[in-house]
Amino acid sequence: MQLKVQPIDIKVGKYKVILNTIDAKELGVNKGDRVRIKNHTTLTAIVDFTEDMISPGMIGLYHEVQEQLQREWTEIVEVEPAKKPKSTRIIRKVMDGFKLERDEINELVKDIVEENLDDIELAAFLTATYIRDLSEDETEWLTKAMIDTGERIEFSSSPIMDKHSIGGVPGNKITLLIVPIVAANSLLIPKTSSRAITGAGGTADLMEVLAPVEFTAQQIKEMTEKVGGVIVWGGATNIAPADDKLIKIEYPLSIDPHCQLLASIMAKKGAVGAQKVVMDLPTGAGTKLPDIKAGRKLARDLISLGERLGMDVDCAITYGASPVGRTVGPALEVIEALKVLETMEGPNSLIEKSAVIAGMLLEMGGVAAKGQGYDLAIETLKNGKALAKLKEIIEIQGGNPDVTHKDIKVGEFTAELTAPANGYILEFYNKRIIQIARLAGAPNDKGAGVMIHKKRGQSVEKGQPVLTIYAEKKEKLADAIKSAREDLPIIVEGMLLEKVGDITEI
Amino acid sequence: MQLKVQPIDIKVGKYKVILNTIDAKELGVNKGDRVRIKNHTTLTAIVDFTEDMISPGMIGLYHEVQEQLQREWTEIVEVEPAKKPKSTRIIRKVMDGFKLERDEINELVKDIVEENLDDIELAAFLTATYIRDLSEDETEWLTKAMIDTGERIEFSSSPIMDKHSIGGVPGNKITLLIVPIVAANSLLIPKTSSRAITGAGGTADLMEVLAPVEFTAQQIKEMTEKVGGVIVWGGATNIAPADDKLIKIEYPLSIDPHCQLLASIMAKKGAVGAQKVVMDLPTGAGTKLPDIKAGRKLARDLISLGERLGMDVDCAITYGASPVGRTVGPALEVIEALKVLETMEGPNSLIEKSAVIAGMLLEMGGVAAKGQGYDLAIETLKNGKALAKLKEIIEIQGGNPDVTHKDIKVGEFTAELTAPANGYILEFYNKRIIQIARLAGAPNDKGAGVMIHKKRGQSVEKGQPVLTIYAEKKEKLADAIKSAREDLPIIVEGMLLEKVGDITEI
Repeated sequence: MQLKVQPIDIKVGKYKVILNTIDAKELGVNKGDRVRIKNHTTLTAIVDFTEDMISPGMIGLYHEVQEQLQREWTEIVEVEPAKKPKSTRIIRKVMDGFKLERDEINELVKDIVEENLDDIELAAFLTATYIRDLSEDETEWLTKAMIDTGERIEFSSSPIMDKHSIGGVPGNKITLLIVPIVAANSLLIPKTSSRAITGAGGTADLMEVLAPVEFTAQQIKEMTEKVGGVIVWGGATNIAPADDKLIKIEYPLSIDPHCQLLASIMAKKGAVGAQKVVMDLPTGAGTKLPDIKAGRKLARDLISLGERLGMDVDCAITYGASPVGRTVGPALEVIEALKVLETMEGPNSLIEKSAVIAGMLLEMGGVAAKGQGYDLAIETLKNGKALAKLKEIIEIQGGNPDVTHKDIKVGEFTAELTAPANGYILEFYNKRIIQIARLAGAPNDKGAGVMIHKKRGQSVEKGQPVLTIYAEKKEKLADAIKSAREDLPIIVEGMLLEKVGDITEI
Repeated sequence: MQLKVQPIDIKVGKYKVILNTIDAKELGVNKGDRVRIKNHTTLTAIVDFTEDMISPGMIGLYHEVQEQLQREWTEIVEVEPAKKPKSTRIIRKVMDGFKLERDEINELVKDIVEENLDDIELAAFLTATYIRDLSEDETEWLTKAMIDTGERIEFSSSPIMDKHSIGGVPGNKITLLIVPIVAANSLLIPKTSSRAITGAGGTADLMEVLAPVEFTAQQIKEMTEKVGGVIVWGGATNIAPADDKLIKIEYPLSIDPHCQLLASIMAKKGAVGAQKVVMDLPTGAGTKLPDIKAGRKLARDLISLGERLGMDVDCAITYGASPVGRTVGPALEVIEALKVLETMEGPNSLIEKSAVIAGMLLEMGGVAAKGQGYDLAIETLKNGKALAKLKEIIEIQGGNPDVTHKDIKVGEFTAELTAPANGYILEFYNKRIIQIARLAGAPNDKGAGVMIHKKRGQSVEKGQPVLTIYAEKKEKLADAIKSAREDLPIIVEGMLLEKVGDITEI
């Protein structure tokens, strides 16, 4: 069918065209079917249609299709129906409970990276893997395909160290301590991190307080070779792009299928050339792992997948039901981490957790004897080598190496949340703390967040401050206070949960 | 957050707004999250975002949101994050394998009808029900909720008859005979039909050759009460709209979850007030039911669901591996059906199947004694009462009642496909016949289709015509011929499947 091209300069993240309903009927295609523009055989685009946006006789080409055609087309193009990519049948196979072959997984991941699949097809795939999971073989192939379809970093020296936390615990700023400790002991650690999607601050959001975090894979390699480590945002690279595209659908569905979680973590590590990795698995109420049993299961799977990929993986099952340290939100967390590096003053939970995990890496990397890693980590903190190394990292990433914790600005609007009764703090809800920090503006407003004065198990007196909320904007502070008051993030023993007036029957 | 409204006059079939990425970050919302426009608490819209289409400080309102706000908004609106509808958690429950409560299903169906769910959320729901299926209770509640969320027809008399074919067999024009036979015997049969999505012609596409098919529920009721029956397009009504919205996602995913299939069929029947229904379940190669066992299972489930809904359901498991009659495509099928009504001349498969199913309805409706339905159906065809009734139906729907089979125009471009060898026809691929008819232009070009001269089991001589392809457009005929020649829809015993030249090793 001959149609007149109407360029639509909107990015939709897919190769998509839009037809008038009349032409779609004539062409015999439905929403979600594929069409090809003749003489452009490489491009198969997903069809959408409309009764009003595009007139009959026209074909709307979204931005990505225009790019793919290199903006070279005749005014009139010949459009023909095309088959759906083979990947749609591969997804169906997963839904039907059949095991996939390696080349099917490769095909699928290629189509994911090349944006050949519609969002609902990806949603079906993720839902199917959420319900049915993938086998160990399939997960290995998925991980390898994710690595192979993106940029890779190959270092000439070894070992290459890495760490990863599966998240779920607020205030987990340990990477800001671990990377400098490890790098200060002559190991290479090219740490790519994420920004918060649902949290109050990912490691990349934190590091951005100190230095730029967006670099190419090549830059990451060069910087790591120069100073031993970096702390950058993985999303700015083209490392394991299939993972990013799947996360865009996983997030709105609020699912994280087990096999995808494994593949996602390990592909990001594999692609940067990591050989020895420690996984931080926070467990407990409010985290992603309800109990230590779930933590052990995930640990076994990560270690096993690591073996298949030739990667040495150790796992640290950590306590995650309470925030790490006493701050949540980018600037507040950076201040807390810098203070430890500068003065060794700070919350025990932060220093201990960082030193334990850094110690594991030091042992795995062969720079500390078995059982000596923790001590070396503490020593590296105490003797200022970790701070010096962080300054090198900040400098090479383009930040100011002379920064101290006193230079970091926090939000100017603050409010205190006080204890509603005398007693011990019985419950401390991670998710509510994150919510309050987000309402206050974190992670987008770097100075927004929450400072925690009392944690679970500590005693408080009525009226004593429990939290301080920081915000850069007055309205955001008001939103955060309102939410915190309506649904307190802590429970003090003996406090009234709700007050109900006399009930009068009418 | 205060944003300036930018109306976008595009229908997206959802309540959707679009923000610039910068504002979305500031607001703390991601793609697929929900926002509310303050002072318009009834509306929660799905968020999409863009880096280029909408400038920072603006909010794009798609057509449906504008409608919902009744086109009354101030230039600047206050936008705030909103919770996802409860239905998203209900979908998650299905994914996790938990049974749903009745009020959860009601909530979910309400949100489906009100377009509160994003396509990927619907895809996750359908994938989950495809993999896990729903229980009998859940399926009953789903069906009832589908009925209750749309228009209903309530007749004052009874019984109300209906029939349904689950499809999958080409040329199944039996409704054009069954409805007049049943109505001619003083029973009411308000038949709503579908248009073809993947087929070469749905019953609504066929009937449209004879008369308009788009009516409201009220009109369907009135016409049925006047002449005893109608054959209309269900899609023009607001009957069980949840089903239509689910089908829009099922089709591109090429899935038809068992519970959805049941609910879809029964909701459409329940909503028009049907009390006694015959289901035509074609089985065999190329249909939706591979064998008679699968047919029996579906029959049991339909009958059982019918009982729960107070509907008397009988099922006819029919042979579907070969087309019904000898024509495929709207005009050709109508000619074949009219000819039977006018002259009793026509393919045995068409007359027999129609009379058997009509006979079952006549017995269920109490106008034929047990075992006498078939004879009464044949009698009603022979004595011209069925033809007279069809003319009444055509007339009340606004068509020309004087039409005869000779008046129906078929495509002027034709081509014959001949037997490639002498022998018996061993295979006859339904799906290929449908594909060829579609390539020739069916169902959109009413005159396009395929006439079948030889069916499975018949003997042919090399060069003898097996099919004639009809098209309204020369190019479409060429496409259909090309496809038919490349991949023959029949296999004649002894014919060469592929010719491979001498293989020379280099």
